Amino acid sequence: MLPMPPAGLLLADLYAPVAEELAVVERRFDDELYSESPFVNGLCQCVQRYRGKMLRPTLLLLSGKTCGPLTDEHVTLAAVVEMVHVATLVHDDVLDEAQVRRKQATINATNGNETAVLLGDYLISHAFHLCSGLDDQYASRLIGATTNTVCEGELLQVRHRANAELTEGEYLEIIRRKTAALTGACCALGARYAGALPQATGQWERFGTDLGMAFQIIDDVLDCVGSEQQMGKTLGRDLDLGEPTLPTIHALHHASAAVRRALASVLSNGHAVSRKTIRGWLEQAGSIEYAYRSAAEYVALAGKHLEPLAQSLAKDALLAVTDFVLRRRH
Amino acid sequence: MLPMPPAGLLLADLYAPVAEELAVVERRFDDELYSESPFVNGLCQCVQRYRGKMLRPTLLLLSGKTCGPLTDEHVTLAAVVEMVHVATLVHDDVLDEAQVRRKQATINATNGNETAVLLGDYLISHAFHLCSGLDDQYASRLIGATTNTVCEGELLQVRHRANAELTEGEYLEIIRRKTAALTGACCALGARYAGALPQATGQWERFGTDLGMAFQIIDDVLDCVGSEQQMGKTLGRDLDLGEPTLPTIHALHHASAAVRRALASVLSNGHAVSRKTIRGWLEQAGSIEYAYRSAAEYVALAGKHLEPLAQSLAKDALLAVTDFVLRRRH
Repeated sequence: MLPMPPAGLLLADLYAPVAEELAVVERRFDDELYSESPFVNGLCQCVQRYRGKMLRPTLLLLSGKTCGPLTDEHVTLAAVVEMVHVATLVHDDVLDEAQVRRKQATINATNGNETAVLLGDYLISHAFHLCSGLDDQYASRLIGATTNTVCEGELLQVRHRANAELTEGEYLEIIRRKTAALTGACCALGARYAGALPQATGQWERFGTDLGMAFQIIDDVLDCVGSEQQMGKTLGRDLDLGEPTLPTIHALHHASAAVRRALASVLSNGHAVSRKTIRGWLEQAGSIEYAYRSAAEYVALAGKHLEPLAQSLAKDALLAVTDFVLRRRH
Repeated sequence: MLPMPPAGLLLADLYAPVAEELAVVERRFDDELYSESPFVNGLCQCVQRYRGKMLRPTLLLLSGKTCGPLTDEHVTLAAVVEMVHVATLVHDDVLDEAQVRRKQATINATNGNETAVLLGDYLISHAFHLCSGLDDQYASRLIGATTNTVCEGELLQVRHRANAELTEGEYLEIIRRKTAALTGACCALGARYAGALPQATGQWERFGTDLGMAFQIIDDVLDCVGSEQQMGKTLGRDLDLGEPTLPTIHALHHASAAVRRALASVLSNGHAVSRKTIRGWLEQAGSIEYAYRSAAEYVALAGKHLEPLAQSLAKDALLAVTDFVLRRRH
């Protein structure tokens, strides 16, 4: 296992090398969403609460800073990737019928599904609009291709609800599309707009993809065993929706016969079981440990992509973020 | 009133000057949506049924052909605007809980709301991706700005559900955003990519906007008085959803006191009344005629924007399409 981070280390500390730029990103995000309609502005203010970890903008900025000087284009693109991410959150909350996110009521809970669907559309449209303001089409093309992939991943995930036969390979392909494609694009954009050549940009994309894989696996683990208070959202939703994730797929093959039957019934028939019971099943089958090991392998792979690069503050911060992904509790 | 079109004139006849290009647009639409996933491809095949009148691609191509030679960029952009339009249809059907479109079951009816939301996202993402493949950013910027406006219009429409106090001015502003902005963009793009200068492009945008206003007013009239068989979709949805449109707003001010009270109750409280009764109320108050007159004024305005242009087959076809908007029954 990787070494634990120093006690008391906060994500904000890891973000320090790009803290100044992140503040500008937040302003650009808000400026782009400004509407003549007070109603639309009110909704966008709710959306601003969804900006939490700012992981994607941070990855973009740190990747850029590792490769060369940050530019105004980095700031714009960092706002773009966060906007794409927030749009998917707003639509995910509709799909998942989620009531709480970041310790606040979701848009669908306060304003209904119709408004939440349209607000997600508004956000994705603004992300593309912001992106189209850059001088060249490179970012628009990569963001367009990436959101295509993200949507496919989400469609496949819904398709495989209640499918207790989903294989680990299929699960990994779904999260590669729905999560890792965007984190990969973040790092590629950061590097490219700091002057990286195509080959190096490809390497950065692979770094971001592997990091995204680890991030999503841990997200799915926390949905099973995390604290709702720390995560600030309703947990256990994956199983409620019949969506198999790495821990449950592992348990479906390695738990006792009785647990395997019960878990398959939870997934396929929506049979209700408490999170505590599920957690017990998964821990007993070694499934949580298995998922953590799998995430750690992706983190190690991610780190390898950065090995050829000279030491720098930004690179150290990136490696620390990578490491943090494994240890996060929210 | 404008003269009636020759008996038996079909929309297909009006499209004749760009029929060849429209066939290529359909192929580009399908090619862009191709996915490695058979599941996603199956959904996209359902979406192909949604392509009906192809009004927006036709406007783009005819505007272009009136200004100069059509290029491959026109074909791409015609596929883009149809994709944006179909994306809004897919999401609209979720918002309206519609079961039938173009005489077929809707995606939300066959595959559920989750899949329909994600499929709409997939379509809008592909529209931007296709657009980003052009050499310059002009189209990406205009499409991004337009979809921002469309989303705002849709958000305002949902916001004003059950609002029997909505004014005619507010209604016109909503349809300008949700419908006319896109038809305006179609004509601007067609003209611009055929070499039109900025001033002329602006004139084309105004033509498309006025045409779009007329189109949406008639669409709303047909929702009240059209034939479900001819329209190929469930009608009466605007009132079911409490959405005031031009005929109902007129009747709320000009019908008898008893009808005004009853109509306000239908809008605000979801009080159920048959389409036949509503139709009687609207006809008696002269509200259908009023809405037709209003649409005819927009059609006349649209025509004026084209007056300075020399006669051509494409211009004649555009004027005939404009005229057809007033007379369509589906």
